[in-house]
Amino acid sequence: MDSETYGTFIQHVKEINTLRSIQALLEWDQETYMPQRAAEDRGNQLAAVAGVLHEKLTRDELGDLLTKLEQEADAENYVAATNVREVRREHDRAVKVPTELVKRIAKATALARDAWVPARKDADFPRFAPHLEILLELKREMADRIGWDSEPYDALMDEFEPGARAAVVQEVFDKVKAELVPLVAAIKDAPRQPNTSILERACPPDKQGAFNRRIAEAMGFDFEAGRIDVSVHPFCSGHSPKDVRFTTRYDEHYIPMSLFGVMHETGHALYEQGFDAEHTGTPMAINTSLGIHESQSRLWENQVGRSRLFWEHFYPALQAEFPSLADVPLDAWHFAINTVRPSLIRVEADEVTYGLHIMLRFDLERQMIAGKLPVPDVPQAWNAGMQQLLAITPPDDAQGCLQDIHWCMGIFGYFPTYALGNLYAAQFFAAARRAMPELDRQIARGGLRPLREWLRENIHQHGKRYRAHELVKVATGEELAHTPFIDYLNGKFRPLYGL
Amino acid sequence: MDSETYGTFIQHVKEINTLRSIQALLEWDQETYMPQRAAEDRGNQLAAVAGVLHEKLTRDELGDLLTKLEQEADAENYVAATNVREVRREHDRAVKVPTELVKRIAKATALARDAWVPARKDADFPRFAPHLEILLELKREMADRIGWDSEPYDALMDEFEPGARAAVVQEVFDKVKAELVPLVAAIKDAPRQPNTSILERACPPDKQGAFNRRIAEAMGFDFEAGRIDVSVHPFCSGHSPKDVRFTTRYDEHYIPMSLFGVMHETGHALYEQGFDAEHTGTPMAINTSLGIHESQSRLWENQVGRSRLFWEHFYPALQAEFPSLADVPLDAWHFAINTVRPSLIRVEADEVTYGLHIMLRFDLERQMIAGKLPVPDVPQAWNAGMQQLLAITPPDDAQGCLQDIHWCMGIFGYFPTYALGNLYAAQFFAAARRAMPELDRQIARGGLRPLREWLRENIHQHGKRYRAHELVKVATGEELAHTPFIDYLNGKFRPLYGL
Repeated sequence: MDSETYGTFIQHVKEINTLRSIQALLEWDQETYMPQRAAEDRGNQLAAVAGVLHEKLTRDELGDLLTKLEQEADAENYVAATNVREVRREHDRAVKVPTELVKRIAKATALARDAWVPARKDADFPRFAPHLEILLELKREMADRIGWDSEPYDALMDEFEPGARAAVVQEVFDKVKAELVPLVAAIKDAPRQPNTSILERACPPDKQGAFNRRIAEAMGFDFEAGRIDVSVHPFCSGHSPKDVRFTTRYDEHYIPMSLFGVMHETGHALYEQGFDAEHTGTPMAINTSLGIHESQSRLWENQVGRSRLFWEHFYPALQAEFPSLADVPLDAWHFAINTVRPSLIRVEADEVTYGLHIMLRFDLERQMIAGKLPVPDVPQAWNAGMQQLLAITPPDDAQGCLQDIHWCMGIFGYFPTYALGNLYAAQFFAAARRAMPELDRQIARGGLRPLREWLRENIHQHGKRYRAHELVKVATGEELAHTPFIDYLNGKFRPLYGL
Repeated sequence: MDSETYGTFIQHVKEINTLRSIQALLEWDQETYMPQRAAEDRGNQLAAVAGVLHEKLTRDELGDLLTKLEQEADAENYVAATNVREVRREHDRAVKVPTELVKRIAKATALARDAWVPARKDADFPRFAPHLEILLELKREMADRIGWDSEPYDALMDEFEPGARAAVVQEVFDKVKAELVPLVAAIKDAPRQPNTSILERACPPDKQGAFNRRIAEAMGFDFEAGRIDVSVHPFCSGHSPKDVRFTTRYDEHYIPMSLFGVMHETGHALYEQGFDAEHTGTPMAINTSLGIHESQSRLWENQVGRSRLFWEHFYPALQAEFPSLADVPLDAWHFAINTVRPSLIRVEADEVTYGLHIMLRFDLERQMIAGKLPVPDVPQAWNAGMQQLLAITPPDDAQGCLQDIHWCMGIFGYFPTYALGNLYAAQFFAAARRAMPELDRQIARGGLRPLREWLRENIHQHGKRYRAHELVKVATGEELAHTPFIDYLNGKFRPLYGL
């Protein structure tokens, strides 16, 4: 491989990703510190960067460099191979989708959002329906432009989970559903139920913030390379391995919101801080998929954060900080933070029912994009699915098919990454426990760094070297599978609920 | 004027200025919230934006649009005339200075800074001298590229104070010096002296912050279109009229630092918020010069903030907030915040001596750029100037000619804008008082908004419509003059010091 050609190529790639890191900062600022009247100007700033980015990503010069490097490919050099392969993917996707289509989608989503807000408020699906129709049409056009083998949905999902195929995902999801539905039903009628009111005891937000920082610190978050702020909707934003910022929000009378929110976002943040800084600005230091990203957050939030082992160490400290919990035994706390209750709203769902919400959306999206589910039938299909999976039916479409913002933003193919994240998380955690017989005892003593090291070594440092399905195999020795997740849920929830 | 051509032109201009607003955000974040390990990545982000900006500013298409618009000029349309004239100026300056010269300067300043830090620490001027030599050579080359009529210094000063000419500035400065030197000497030996120790009384920083916000609010700062944060070096950063952010710093035992710091920065901020938002992203909504910018900060900090009238209203509130000042009479407070004391360090100077520091640097810079002051002679010239103007001599070069960072950053021509700001401030304030006979009484009642309105009407809203020297004439009816400033100083300080 000609090192000069590769050097020029990497310079282009770094410029592109540097512009993306600027987008991330603009978005982070928008949610944290931006004065409210600046919204329109911020839109212009984002548009300006997007314009420059698109131009740089689609320019012929980059295509020529890629062609040249592909001809000189050296299989031994996985860094170069990764960077060339992933930039080729992005360049091709950007070239294939014409600017005018991007603009039509942007315009349609703006209108759809304007319709969705009042439609949800009034539970008035027909008001939103024509917009959904148009967006589906546009996204099908986009899928066709990008190209697909089995079904157009693959082309859309590929944006968030490169290499994933809907048919494969469906197969695993079906197995998960077959196990989850009876588990949810059993838990609902279980003899033991948690006392959830203890979670509503007063915990001053400033003390929550200080406690959360201790946990993030224990998990290995580097505060010299990142920060925690407050925003309405929590998120994590990695601008480089040395600048990873996430947010949280506080409810004085519901400590789990910030506590598990911070563990979740710290999980995301450790992934971003775990890339090799030497590769900053190249695919080798970028997450491989949203599913893998979500696996890192869910692993820390659930496998670790809602485990009894974790609280063996941290619960006395929590009680010392929050006297309102002083009379709550560890077991009651542990049971309460593992409350399972079928609910209408996805974002409030627990870790057992959450996946069922996702699988419903995945089902519907796949059918909608394929043209098999007419838009007017969506509410009915939604409600039937909710009844079948969670045994509840929304009283109206506001709490049903209008609840999520994704569709009005034209986002199709994103939802499955949430459920994939849970499956990957269980696989990774099981593999880590196999590899480290000490792990449980370490966690029970508050020693979380060895787990971070295992994740860094086996997942984070690889960046985009492997696609998600390959990475799972490299890190765990297995293909994507449902059993570790189901085993984990059964292992925790059956004893808790006395099943 | 062809509205389509003009529309395309404005689109280019807005893109350029939107990118600049992104630079401003990156810099603001760097000083406020950026994690410390992100410094290098931030450098790459700034370089990426600078590269795109330079490309957009120098592209032929912009030059062609300018030429076309200049041919079709319509003198009636001052908005278009302003935008075309000012973008032409920037385009030409950018085109005339080749990228390789910019890079040479960047490299030389990086090396110069590396030498200046230890040189200042060890008071070792010879260590810094060769770098100063190189920088002067490079800046002369830059001045020659840009072009000049009377002397190369004009081309450099023009970057910060468009249209200003060193010979004209010198003439006014000489008149100021002739008045200030005897005033400083008289104050030094005056029969009355302030009790400065009252300024060191404890005032909790969080209460300082709250009090400062009240003052900024009273001055008319729009908190929905801006914010106040903390940084080591206070600054104001206007990203658009709807996003203006400034910073301050607190010293529990020196309340004037944040108090007058915030009034100063709010003055800058009101200028930025006062542009017509309709023109966001074009020269009509950009400051006309740094001297005018500084006039706005100094006017609020000094003419208003250090006046007895202002404290007639605000002093009781200050005392209520800070019990440590409860036994300090208003007059003692007013005298203390107007302490005049010749000092070695510019940034700590009061409003009487400050200008003399600036005029010394202006003198030396002008001679250095003209090649009339050899670098080895700078320390001696500095010390002689300090003795002549302030009757003190630095004990070493660290407290003398090595104290400021400007020269090692290659910044020549910037200093005079500080002193011009003081002169403009006095002229504007005198004009406002003439135009509003009620003004003194309003200020004494805490009514600061009418003054903001006058400034907005007569200065802010014009953006770059007028060059600084024209703006002074439009707003005050006078040319740049030294008498309002001298009259103001004599009017306040002679009675205070019993002269």
